[in-house]
Amino acid sequence: MTAGVFTARHLAVVGLGLMGGSMALALRGCADTITGVDRNPDTLHTALTRKIVDTATDDLRSGVENADVVILAAPVRVILQIVNGRIGAYLRSNTLLVDIGSTKEDICSAMGRLPIGIQAIGGHPMTGKESSGIDASDDTLYRNRPFVLCATRRTTPAARLRALELVGALGANPFEMEAHRHDQTVAAISHLPYLLSAALVATIDHEGAQDEAVWNLAAGGFRDMSRLAASDLDMMNDILTTNTQAVATQLARFRMHLAMLEAMLISKDEAKLMELLQSARQARIAWMHKREGKA
Amino acid sequence: MTAGVFTARHLAVVGLGLMGGSMALALRGCADTITGVDRNPDTLHTALTRKIVDTATDDLRSGVENADVVILAAPVRVILQIVNGRIGAYLRSNTLLVDIGSTKEDICSAMGRLPIGIQAIGGHPMTGKESSGIDASDDTLYRNRPFVLCATRRTTPAARLRALELVGALGANPFEMEAHRHDQTVAAISHLPYLLSAALVATIDHEGAQDEAVWNLAAGGFRDMSRLAASDLDMMNDILTTNTQAVATQLARFRMHLAMLEAMLISKDEAKLMELLQSARQARIAWMHKREGKA
Repeated sequence: MTAGVFTARHLAVVGLGLMGGSMALALRGCADTITGVDRNPDTLHTALTRKIVDTATDDLRSGVENADVVILAAPVRVILQIVNGRIGAYLRSNTLLVDIGSTKEDICSAMGRLPIGIQAIGGHPMTGKESSGIDASDDTLYRNRPFVLCATRRTTPAARLRALELVGALGANPFEMEAHRHDQTVAAISHLPYLLSAALVATIDHEGAQDEAVWNLAAGGFRDMSRLAASDLDMMNDILTTNTQAVATQLARFRMHLAMLEAMLISKDEAKLMELLQSARQARIAWMHKREGKA
Repeated sequence: MTAGVFTARHLAVVGLGLMGGSMALALRGCADTITGVDRNPDTLHTALTRKIVDTATDDLRSGVENADVVILAAPVRVILQIVNGRIGAYLRSNTLLVDIGSTKEDICSAMGRLPIGIQAIGGHPMTGKESSGIDASDDTLYRNRPFVLCATRRTTPAARLRALELVGALGANPFEMEAHRHDQTVAAISHLPYLLSAALVATIDHEGAQDEAVWNLAAGGFRDMSRLAASDLDMMNDILTTNTQAVATQLARFRMHLAMLEAMLISKDEAKLMELLQSARQARIAWMHKREGKA
């Protein structure tokens, strides 16, 4: 078996924020019918008006019961509630269930306890935007971006292929890995940077309260380093709560690297400091080079 | 006396990188003649070919001896060498000497020891670009950006007004402050973020050496948080060497804020963690709002 072209008879997208809305838009041509499920009536209205979905409901059961593909596009703990809740009873046998939550171990474990016959696989697209909500939906959001797939006890070979087809239809680059390894990885590249950004803003906020010049002079470097601090807190709370240990490990490793820099700085060991900074500089440039080559 | 329109009979720009080249371009209409001074013959050739300067030389003395305004646009320790060196003997009396180095205490002290009659003032424009070198020169680089001015023992009231006129001609927003306060401020908003970025890349580089998924999945958050790690090392070395104590102080304060976040995370004190993250989020959003309102 090899992956072919993704098609769905009836696609249901649960959660119509930026990620879910963009998913529906990007899969428009692959599905006969798309149903959107969301608790917010304004969001449902927008989704229908902009023809992002064909039908819309705030009722999970009626939204998913006729679907052959269901995407859960909500914060991690909402996904966990849905997977641990009644959805197993609502879905038809053989339905492909994919979530796109930001941490995977808890969700993939929960998926593994769904009724046999449901084809469940964990997903995490590494993409996003400054703006959020269905109004920011963009059918190119997933294009050329990594999309992690994590098999569960309910992932059959056929489910895996169909999920790969779905990723292909989005124009994304699939990465298959274990949920545990995914969570370790994103703790390093995503959750650690978020906490550093928040701690930096807390530091500057404290300095700025004593001297407003701090805020007045902050420029492009601070702008970039503080962007993640403005991330959606519901999402970040779910992430930090479901990936605490991996994040704590990365924080400890970061502290070690920062302590080395600090020691070299204070002891005025210019040669060693420059060696470490040069190595970081080259690693970053090499990564950007590879990334730009791919895009 | 109030600031009027900036004019120069003969402007000399020492150091034709991005900052110096952009300065020359932006002041094109204000100066009868512009001379560029740089050690690199290719840079001088480009500056002449692109008509960024009228005359070009690699000799400091002949470049500045007829000028009535001289701008030193080089890394901090090069500026220090020039100010502590022979330039005091080369300049005419009443020449306005402005540097745009990234730290100000050492430079402003050195300027204070120049011969009486030289009108010297420290400057630091808070702007920049990804790309560097004269090829990246841009006459809008300073527009709407903060431009710090630090008086020295050689700053007369007339020199101060003329420097304000120069900042006005660039379209920048002047901030007058003591050199010491400037260095404390940029340690917080600029040098600390740089070291955090470098330490983050060092951490990720270490993780990535064990699992390439780390590099493969790194996305937009890491891109922004790692950008500063690719900064020019000559510039950063000069900055860290001339502002060590202020940077070490800010590092210590940052560690305190990070330790608080870490303790709340590990102890699963969700309420307090969210309170701190919410406060950082709001501070960042408020700053961006103010910044965008100004631009």
